[in-house]
Amino acid sequence: QNSLLSATGTTIFTVMSALAVQHGAINLGQGFPDYDGPEDVIEAAAAALKDGRNQYPPLTGVPELRQAVAAHNRRFYGLEVDPNAEVVVTSGATEAITACLMAVLNPGDECVLIEPLYDTYLPVVKMLGAVPKLVRLNPPDWALPRAELAAAFGPKTKAILFNTPMNPTGKVFTNAELAFIASLIEKHDCYAICDEVYEHLTFDGWKHIPLMTLPGMRERSLRIGSAGKTFSLTGWKVGYITCDRSLAPNVAKAHQNLTFTTPPNLQRGVAVGLMKDDAYFEGLSTRLQARRDRLAAGLAEIGFGVLETRGSYFITTDFRPLGFNGDDVAFCRTITEEAKVTAIPVTAFYASEEAPSHYARFAFCKGEAVLDEALDRLRAWV
Amino acid sequence: QNSLLSATGTTIFTVMSALAVQHGAINLGQGFPDYDGPEDVIEAAAAALKDGRNQYPPLTGVPELRQAVAAHNRRFYGLEVDPNAEVVVTSGATEAITACLMAVLNPGDECVLIEPLYDTYLPVVKMLGAVPKLVRLNPPDWALPRAELAAAFGPKTKAILFNTPMNPTGKVFTNAELAFIASLIEKHDCYAICDEVYEHLTFDGWKHIPLMTLPGMRERSLRIGSAGKTFSLTGWKVGYITCDRSLAPNVAKAHQNLTFTTPPNLQRGVAVGLMKDDAYFEGLSTRLQARRDRLAAGLAEIGFGVLETRGSYFITTDFRPLGFNGDDVAFCRTITEEAKVTAIPVTAFYASEEAPSHYARFAFCKGEAVLDEALDRLRAWV
Ligand SMILES: CSCCC(=O)C(=O)O
Ligand SMILES: CSCCC(=O)C(=O)O
Repeated sequence: QNSLLSATGTTIFTVMSALAVQHGAINLGQGFPDYDGPEDVIEAAAAALKDGRNQYPPLTGVPELRQAVAAHNRRFYGLEVDPNAEVVVTSGATEAITACLMAVLNPGDECVLIEPLYDTYLPVVKMLGAVPKLVRLNPPDWALPRAELAAAFGPKTKAILFNTPMNPTGKVFTNAELAFIASLIEKHDCYAICDEVYEHLTFDGWKHIPLMTLPGMRERSLRIGSAGKTFSLTGWKVGYITCDRSLAPNVAKAHQNLTFTTPPNLQRGVAVGLMKDDAYFEGLSTRLQARRDRLAAGLAEIGFGVLETRGSYFITTDFRPLGFNGDDVAFCRTITEEAKVTAIPVTAFYASEEAPSHYARFAFCKGEAVLDEALDRLRAWV
Repeated sequence: QNSLLSATGTTIFTVMSALAVQHGAINLGQGFPDYDGPEDVIEAAAAALKDGRNQYPPLTGVPELRQAVAAHNRRFYGLEVDPNAEVVVTSGATEAITACLMAVLNPGDECVLIEPLYDTYLPVVKMLGAVPKLVRLNPPDWALPRAELAAAFGPKTKAILFNTPMNPTGKVFTNAELAFIASLIEKHDCYAICDEVYEHLTFDGWKHIPLMTLPGMRERSLRIGSAGKTFSLTGWKVGYITCDRSLAPNVAKAHQNLTFTTPPNLQRGVAVGLMKDDAYFEGLSTRLQARRDRLAAGLAEIGFGVLETRGSYFITTDFRPLGFNGDDVAFCRTITEEAKVTAIPVTAFYASEEAPSHYARFAFCKGEAVLDEALDRLRAWV
């Protein structure tokens, strides 16, 4: 059997969700809302099941959704893309990330990754025979270490893959940081794979900036969005890649070998979602910001060190002030078993052992009563 | 960009379907029904969208579907499998095939493939850094060449991947052929990845036999089924892998890196489908056999050499008797443009240039009026 896979465990998200169920814990681990997505999007997908179009849709996605992705790029970022040649729909952002890596990397190529990182990035880069080059952001502010990043690029660099807004840190890359990344990409003549699934989940006036909008980046960026996060429908697994027409054919061929196509009825539902008015997108972040504030205030009050979250579903907390004697894995297991609240240990987002091990990540994409109950339980436990 | 992908074209199925649309041709190329799947399955999926379970389902699939896959294995093949540890649901059989290859192959391993083959097998084996060993079936009977097959296995063989019932040949592997394959697998201590998506589409009393049911094969087989073909819902992209508990963890980890999960509402619809009574499965093949007979008789009457089809959606035809002066690609383009009927050139299922180039594949999973109209057009053209 494949030794890379044999050597890795099941994803921490599945492990902690199973542990939450086992102990009847409130699951603030895996990042999924406990509320449903917009009714009109769900209705559209249900109606689409019944109009006799349940066979293979086009390889790159149904025309309605590709057009909606193009319109969404124009509306929010002023990006002009050809829906027929620069959009590829995938079965979720996970597939999109894998397809983009497959499309650009050759064995032996180097790929720059930024730690903390999402747990599929590293195994996929390795599976493709490419060489990961890790650069680490440092808490508590997660600023981009420019010298280290520049040093990670070299003559063999083919791509950088990064996530903004960023899980688990809640960081939103600034224009200056993106400009620095862009300068390295131009200098080393390579590509950027931009995991932007939390693009609409930013707070306090922070705005997501796609790297693709920076000078010189139009032809070098593969920008990934996701219906799961934008419409609170994480189970639907509909993602979309926007990239230059010079890159799209390889992305489509990778997609062909991974899933070939994505269910047409869900695609048509998501097309309805992307055409919703600005109020929907504003409401999404406003409501989520209120949940963030509620959970952050409660955790701080209990005694956690609460790091700033500018985007995403997640708050990173330092649990040392609570006086807990153990690492983050022990902490997350203990609160699941004893306080009946589940979080994710942040070391799961690091490749090596020498990672900060005093952080736990809490998801706030939950109903207010659920957040309050979780806080009550933690308060009682402390 | 990745050179393997850059060097290959877009899949023939997409190319020919696009050409069919362009020329207003009847599309007997890509294998999808022009009729819809069972109403109760579609209703169940639509209802499931509206009951608030649209978030990430478990990594290996919703319990209802894993249980239904286990029950289906028991009912049809007497296979006992643990729904909690020996079933992995995927986003279609294409993902299932890729996940199984990823789960077992290491770079440098050899993987035996049988030509003619489905067009994702070879690129995925190569992407993983494994070495394909091709063995060719010979028309018109497509019997297994035992000496060549035995010679393809060696000390580096890690797996064989094959398709029964088989696209495009319509071959159903016999018990004797499967026993021979099993003996090679045991001798060389390796695995079998069994693409069995056409398991319920067999004719004339031919019955599909999963390799997994043969002595010694329970622990060595990864058996792949697909809702697309079993329920005439090719767009849904719900597949399922049945394999021993020693193999399932690596398969699940591969799935995690490819799509992570599969839409829960479609899974729940497919669970309803797999529990349908025997009459459904018998009716599926009976109705399809009538379509096969209709198309085969018409093509023979027009003058095609019609090869026997024992299973799948497809008839392979020899067009030399028509006096056409050119290869199969030219033939398929010509009938699309001139007769307005689309077929697939069988050389697309071969890796090398020296393939038989006088066969065209026609799909018969279409309404009878459509088949008749296609026959009328071909008759007029000839
Ligand atoms: C795909 S499961 C993990 C969901 C998620 O993005 C997270 O919790 O970080
Ligand atoms: C996944 S597109 C091809 C459909 C099919 O299996 C075929 O036509 O051979």
